[in-house]
Amino acid sequence: MNVVALIERKRNGGQLAAGELRDLMRAYAADEVPDYQMSALAMAVYFRGMADEEIEALTTAMLESGRMLDLSHLTVPRIDKHSTGGVGDKVSLILAPLVAACGIAVPMMSGRGLGHTGGTLDKLESIPGFRTRLSLEETAAQVERLGVAMIGQTKEIAPADRKFYSLRDATSTVEAIPLIAASIMSKKLAEGLTGLVLDVKTGAGAFMPKLEDALRLAHTMIALGERRGCPTVALLTDMDAPLGVACGNALEVEESVLCLRGEGPADLREVTLALSAEMLLVAKAAENEIAARRRVEEVLASGAALDKFRAIVRAQGSDERVVDDPRGVLPQAKIVRTLEAEAEGFVQRVEPRAVGRAIIDLGGGRTKVTDEIDPSVGVMIHHRPGSRVERGAPLATVHARDEATFATAAAALRYAIVVGETPPPTRPLVSHRVTARGVEELSFTGAS
Amino acid sequence: MNVVALIERKRNGGQLAAGELRDLMRAYAADEVPDYQMSALAMAVYFRGMADEEIEALTTAMLESGRMLDLSHLTVPRIDKHSTGGVGDKVSLILAPLVAACGIAVPMMSGRGLGHTGGTLDKLESIPGFRTRLSLEETAAQVERLGVAMIGQTKEIAPADRKFYSLRDATSTVEAIPLIAASIMSKKLAEGLTGLVLDVKTGAGAFMPKLEDALRLAHTMIALGERRGCPTVALLTDMDAPLGVACGNALEVEESVLCLRGEGPADLREVTLALSAEMLLVAKAAENEIAARRRVEEVLASGAALDKFRAIVRAQGSDERVVDDPRGVLPQAKIVRTLEAEAEGFVQRVEPRAVGRAIIDLGGGRTKVTDEIDPSVGVMIHHRPGSRVERGAPLATVHARDEATFATAAAALRYAIVVGETPPPTRPLVSHRVTARGVEELSFTGAS
Repeated sequence: MNVVALIERKRNGGQLAAGELRDLMRAYAADEVPDYQMSALAMAVYFRGMADEEIEALTTAMLESGRMLDLSHLTVPRIDKHSTGGVGDKVSLILAPLVAACGIAVPMMSGRGLGHTGGTLDKLESIPGFRTRLSLEETAAQVERLGVAMIGQTKEIAPADRKFYSLRDATSTVEAIPLIAASIMSKKLAEGLTGLVLDVKTGAGAFMPKLEDALRLAHTMIALGERRGCPTVALLTDMDAPLGVACGNALEVEESVLCLRGEGPADLREVTLALSAEMLLVAKAAENEIAARRRVEEVLASGAALDKFRAIVRAQGSDERVVDDPRGVLPQAKIVRTLEAEAEGFVQRVEPRAVGRAIIDLGGGRTKVTDEIDPSVGVMIHHRPGSRVERGAPLATVHARDEATFATAAAALRYAIVVGETPPPTRPLVSHRVTARGVEELSFTGAS
Repeated sequence: MNVVALIERKRNGGQLAAGELRDLMRAYAADEVPDYQMSALAMAVYFRGMADEEIEALTTAMLESGRMLDLSHLTVPRIDKHSTGGVGDKVSLILAPLVAACGIAVPMMSGRGLGHTGGTLDKLESIPGFRTRLSLEETAAQVERLGVAMIGQTKEIAPADRKFYSLRDATSTVEAIPLIAASIMSKKLAEGLTGLVLDVKTGAGAFMPKLEDALRLAHTMIALGERRGCPTVALLTDMDAPLGVACGNALEVEESVLCLRGEGPADLREVTLALSAEMLLVAKAAENEIAARRRVEEVLASGAALDKFRAIVRAQGSDERVVDDPRGVLPQAKIVRTLEAEAEGFVQRVEPRAVGRAIIDLGGGRTKVTDEIDPSVGVMIHHRPGSRVERGAPLATVHARDEATFATAAAALRYAIVVGETPPPTRPLVSHRVTARGVEELSFTGAS
């Protein structure tokens, strides 16, 4: 295999054949192609893109570099959700037990937080003892028994993707849509799903802030899923401000429990219900959107989702009392202090990246994958954009481990939360529904 | 140093500061920055380019990664020529002794052949015993004594460039003008020159075939030379067909000796005289172009250049009889067989890349730097484009070591040399003269 010629062809805007990509990724996974050639190729892809067939071949090659979760003996649909990530996005913690309580198998594989975005695994692990490192066999057994497992990417899943992703992270070649799509889908398709729902974030806090990029990423991932026989649907949801009130690992678990009880912030509830309903639809477990929506609302109200969450916590080795008394179980920060509005007016912006960085400053996030995190710290943002505040009203509450990190985070939040005289334009919470057939614009703006 | 952030900035079209590039190249030369980051950066530069200050900082960093040839005690000008390479380009073998015979010091550092282009070192080494691996001290001593030395890049010269170039070669990131310019100039500036003449090839056989790219490369290198106090001039010369008749290492030495005797092909003589005259001008050793041209013609006719070549051959450990009886000293191929024109007409094309590949097929070139070459083999192309040939007239003579390689090369040459009914448009041999002040279009079309 002449790797130099492959790089040159891609650099010049040409296309790589499926067989070439398969051989390349196989050789790379076997350490037979050096990192310096793969990083040059990744940069060429950043500038030149990839044709649909190339992305499919790359996805298949990474998928086939490892093992798959075998759930084919189950008779129920097997559906997962993937989010491109954001600040305050704890949807998975509510959605997984909720959809499982609707009788659908949810073999959910999640990631850790990096940069300004949080990660489901970190949130779950703030519940003391929660095990996210399950083997494929343990996962299959738990899904069979409980209908749901919430795990991290094991070493057996798409090892070529794992290797390639960490190289891209070290060479500024992450932000290439074909590579993002192939990376996500190689892992999701390894779960042996019968359907997939994607939550593609848009807005300032999203990985790809621009609508056109988010749509392109959605289309690319949907095409990959559909061509491998996994019906895939995407919702574009808003990440121009943090989702919900809680931002920070343990705080988000507490808010998830609230939401599972039928309480919690309206925006979080709305995005979760919308995505959950899509999972029922893609599973053909509901006749239409209205029926799907009614079903997830009913199951949430019935307490069955909360019970399922309790069962997950117990099955994965942790303390189920977190469901009844979150604060009694979750780690608590030493300093809890509220910031007040310095003037009256409307909240115009809550800059999600700035909030994400404040969490890193507090010790609750990572700039490198190897960073340790403190699960207790974080921020409660008491208002969404558009909300009216009086002078002296609580704007945000900082949970910090010491004075120094509190001061840094508090200063950052003063800039992140902008109060002005007029309300900002409203943004829909769930703006588009993308399927293999096309894009549907949605109008629901949620509660504010 | 955050290398990921530097790559990202370049990828996004931003600029790297001089200090950043200096630290980066220093760390890379010290093996503190991994190849995979440098190759991603090189690919980003391929797409985004570099500003003048960036190219200068990169050149300086690579130059300062090694030692310089110290000739500052010499009172005579120290001028070198660099060619971007081509097929049949043996100009250096004639020009170095010729310009030295004009009283100018020529500390010439050359490269080896790679791909379709030949290299001066390989040609010189086809003279049995010729030593091109001189230390910097030996080189300085020989230049002081003889006024000229013809050597290869030592390990002491620009080691960061050496390392970066071989990485670029393995990652399809060679063809980026800023990187080419910095690579060439970091080595040339290490020769401690007081002036430099660049031979930038254009046409199908050139490294950069397009005129606009050749001009851009010339401008970039000139700016680098001038800003470091080394007056630099470029001639754009034709490489749409091989230069001269002989293509292949020993054959080209023989043709160089012919040219030094005042014989040899007119196109080769013209390009050599034009570049030599520029060296006199840049050295301020002639009042104007006419005087410079007259001087190099006179010195060539006087036999002084031939004597200087003899002195070089002797000083660098080889057999000076090559000057009197080239065929008696140079290795000769077993098979020497002429191809005849199959129809009458005008030679329309002599495809230089195809001729270069035929030489590789014969065993006289390299596809990898580690390939061994056979100096005896090659091709004599008896006509330039525009030449009228009768049916049965000799078109080319192949010098091969066996029947198999002869057959392959002969078949390739049948495609490389195109005979048609009408003469092709004429191309000037020396088309442009580029200085720091601008571009001058030249009209001399040479002899055909």
